[in-house]
Amino acid sequence: MTDSPGAALRDLRERKPLIHQITNYVVMNETANATLAIGALPVMAHAVEEVEEMASVAGALVLNIGTLSTHWIEAMLLAGKAANTAGVPVVLDPVGVGATTFRTDTAKKILDGVDVAIVRGNAAEVAALAGLEAEIRGVESIGVEAGAPTIARTAARRLGVVASVTGPVDHVSDGTRALAVANGDPLLATITGSGCMASTITGCFAAVRREAPVAAAAFALAAFGVAAEDAAQAAEGPGTFHARLYDALYALAPDALDERANIDDA
Amino acid sequence: MTDSPGAALRDLRERKPLIHQITNYVVMNETANATLAIGALPVMAHAVEEVEEMASVAGALVLNIGTLSTHWIEAMLLAGKAANTAGVPVVLDPVGVGATTFRTDTAKKILDGVDVAIVRGNAAEVAALAGLEAEIRGVESIGVEAGAPTIARTAARRLGVVASVTGPVDHVSDGTRALAVANGDPLLATITGSGCMASTITGCFAAVRREAPVAAAAFALAAFGVAAEDAAQAAEGPGTFHARLYDALYALAPDALDERANIDDA
Amino acid sequence: MTDSPGAALRDLRERKPLIHQITNYVVMNETANATLAIGALPVMAHAVEEVEEMASVAGALVLNIGTLSTHWIEAMLLAGKAANTAGVPVVLDPVGVGATTFRTDTAKKILDGVDVAIVRGNAAEVAALAGLEAEIRGVESIGVEAGAPTIARTAARRLGVVASVTGPVDHVSDGTRALAVANGDPLLATITGSGCMASTITGCFAAVRREAPVAAAAFALAAFGVAAEDAAQAAEGPGTFHARLYDALYALAPDALDERANIDDA
Repeated sequence: MTDSPGAALRDLRERKPLIHQITNYVVMNETANATLAIGALPVMAHAVEEVEEMASVAGALVLNIGTLSTHWIEAMLLAGKAANTAGVPVVLDPVGVGATTFRTDTAKKILDGVDVAIVRGNAAEVAALAGLEAEIRGVESIGVEAGAPTIARTAARRLGVVASVTGPVDHVSDGTRALAVANGDPLLATITGSGCMASTITGCFAAVRREAPVAAAAFALAAFGVAAEDAAQAAEGPGTFHARLYDALYALAPDALDERANIDDA
Repeated sequence: MTDSPGAALRDLRERKPLIHQITNYVVMNETANATLAIGALPVMAHAVEEVEEMASVAGALVLNIGTLSTHWIEAMLLAGKAANTAGVPVVLDPVGVGATTFRTDTAKKILDGVDVAIVRGNAAEVAALAGLEAEIRGVESIGVEAGAPTIARTAARRLGVVASVTGPVDHVSDGTRALAVANGDPLLATITGSGCMASTITGCFAAVRREAPVAAAAFALAAFGVAAEDAAQAAEGPGTFHARLYDALYALAPDALDERANIDDA
Repeated sequence: MTDSPGAALRDLRERKPLIHQITNYVVMNETANATLAIGALPVMAHAVEEVEEMASVAGALVLNIGTLSTHWIEAMLLAGKAANTAGVPVVLDPVGVGATTFRTDTAKKILDGVDVAIVRGNAAEVAALAGLEAEIRGVESIGVEAGAPTIARTAARRLGVVASVTGPVDHVSDGTRALAVANGDPLLATITGSGCMASTITGCFAAVRREAPVAAAAFALAAFGVAAEDAAQAAEGPGTFHARLYDALYALAPDALDERANIDDA
């Protein structure tokens, strides 16, 4: 019997993994709420005095460089190494890579110092990280969607990670295998932190599928995408969509997820 | 004539006390909005250059260690001492105490350096702080609910504070007197920051009941719990519950609060 | 043909300017979402290593001193100077000026070191910044509304900026010309960050009306106010109003804005 996103979601809700997140100020509340809504437990901790202790006992560690400063980078490196030692999977969200030298350098420093399991970003960010040409505008990605499958495959090979590139269609690859996930809703692009939430949900699934990061990444994006589809049904714009996104993550049924997940070999 | 939560709420809305909060990044927006919704005025300030000036003129000071770092601890100590000098009640929320040594040490350092009026936490956090056995998992409390009344009473005695232990039923004690508050809704556990909001509302009531911290803590939890009951009525999940929680705090009528508050001597 | 708020909104949505925000922890998510909802692109970055690079390519820079600390002030000064060099308009939100010496000194330091185009604050904040008498209570403004037109005009002259003073009626002045904007809803005062969002929307309009900061400030407040009026229609309190405010900003039609904007020469 083969694995499925619904089966992983069932495991997640049963095990309630602790997801340690060192993330940006803008989305901390949102990613913590998304973690709770899907059925895991969030913890935010960034002090160098405690990140190793926290990361070691976590189910997954999510590093997000959306609002960097020097002592946070130090904490990310310490936490990442402790996670590696403890066998805890690490997800990196390279927010805004390519927009400034500092962000690009920091993401590379993390990839150099930490064994990252999954990089989740938009096409422009992942392309920039992999040294592919890309037009970047702040932290928003413009005009590189067409190349997303290639970007995912190439980034995975060059960086030695599972690359999870989100967009109208999401593309996940370990450099060899590639999956396309066609769930979601355009309203996701109208709220800040939807990408960061996708990274957090990726961490939640990685915690219960450590041995299968490609599947974990694809299952996570399918779950998040199906929830977004449900939220969009009842929404009247970005604000009500945002509130209903947590309702939908919380209400997401494993069987419905299996029926509606649109994951294909690419 | 005896005091009541509705009478305290009336005073709060008339006096509009300034609630100085040095709290974690995850919930700042949420606790500020809860402060406004119940009828008080929030101010967030954490710079060592200004916390003493701000705390001195506040109606209450709320210290929350949810996302610590070194210079924030210094600010909490300075603010706490300034509040003590000015006679401003201090509420401590020991988020995640027991999860890492750093958090436990920091909470103890605050209790050593500052005269804390009320400690508001979940059973596991308050138990850890008081040196009682407890199973801790991140910042979520699991399996210690049964012992909550004992934890509240013992923590109050050992720490020399009013202990306010929230859970399915809340328990407030000064070591001698004990009150149980049976308001609230299970949806509170599905959003991040509901505990932090309970601490902030505790600060709001402490500002208008300085001389009666046990009553202030119980009144606050009854008010927050009744609002949660109202929010749950119209909610379809965690996200819409969260939005409606502010609606309900704002709409909470003193008379209805007095009728529905479920506070008993324990 | 004369300019109009609707014409500016059309330009904004077509050009999608990048709005670099160095703002407070409490409202970062809110101002980022407001930026997206109106049609621009937000980026939050505060590291001294990257703020100059980011501010130089932005459409506008918004500085907000709501939760200060020393290294953030340094970043604000660096970003502001880089914005000036690149011709990028700078909006300053002096949150809580007058409440502590540290905030007043910091706002003045920014005004000394950076050529600020627009200062957006409440009457008490702008009055304190301009050295006018004002009663300040935390970050909330009380009892100085009557003098708002005079405060706007005087502050503009003394500080050499466009002063944008929000309240029940908003007043915008460059010291000579003065506009009154009578849009909005009392529910704005029940959520935290509504002033900060007004500053961010001001930045969005300043990005497409660099040569006309008085018009930019007035157009922004009209747009934000009309959206608040729409959100209030469907709201049941502060929480649902907050969610619907983003819906309304997103749905705001340029023609409707032109019809409903209530901007008068004062």
